[in-house]
Amino acid sequence: MHDPACPLCQAPGGLPVVQAARFRVIRAEEPGFPAFWRVVWQDHVAEFSDLDAADRALCMDAVARVERAVRDVLSPDKINLAALGNMVPHLHWHVVARWHWDSRFPAPIWAPPRREDDPAQMQALQARLAAADDAIRAALASVQA
Amino acid sequence: MHDPACPLCQAPGGLPVVQAARFRVIRAEEPGFPAFWRVVWQDHVAEFSDLDAADRALCMDAVARVERAVRDVLSPDKINLAALGNMVPHLHWHVVARWHWDSRFPAPIWAPPRREDDPAQMQALQARLAAADDAIRAALASVQA
Repeated sequence: MHDPACPLCQAPGGLPVVQAARFRVIRAEEPGFPAFWRVVWQDHVAEFSDLDAADRALCMDAVARVERAVRDVLSPDKINLAALGNMVPHLHWHVVARWHWDSRFPAPIWAPPRREDDPAQMQALQARLAAADDAIRAALASVQA
Repeated sequence: MHDPACPLCQAPGGLPVVQAARFRVIRAEEPGFPAFWRVVWQDHVAEFSDLDAADRALCMDAVARVERAVRDVLSPDKINLAALGNMVPHLHWHVVARWHWDSRFPAPIWAPPRREDDPAQMQALQARLAAADDAIRAALASVQA
């Protein structure tokens, strides 16, 4: 299943981190939220419940492994998970690490900002993203077949 | 695991729809988004990856069943799933039915409004919520033990 009009069928959608048979993990490049990954299902399906039980399990196992790796390396204050897809109805899970100092906390990242970005915190975080990517690759090494 | 300071340990958090051993389903009462359910894990855990593999599977099976029941009864334009918990760090999954006419579509429900609520659409939707609740109960009847 592939839709030539779908941006997630046409391009990775971010920095490639893991390419597995049924899904990929990309690091998103969203302003203000550098610790932001997406688990993108390979097939063009809109809804989580479009997957059968085995694929749902595979998909959420990947999400949990990404979440765990991000927690282990970055120790965020909270992880946010979401599958929305209102604009791009191709199943993808947002995995976003949140901190008390980020511009929206404790509101969702889509809410209006509550404070300015903190350049020092952001720079320190940027320096640790490659280690988080490595941990994600290691966490998914056994399921990339 | 129970936290006396946690609102989701102290109260259902919405209209009770299903009470299972490890989770409950409540209908949220959020202005502008009447077709909004939450799958609330019974134990006080903050993150999805705090659950072991069996509990994660049970949790997401419940989420998928709720999603499927809501789709079958209400035929929304999109389902939005999210586990955020920045304000209440007790694992709960938002299952929100979205329509093109709602106040934020295609933005997330937490974004600023793009248009006024549509009272006629909202009233028509309100009239179908009990049927959606019934479908959710039926979908989870086999896993309520």
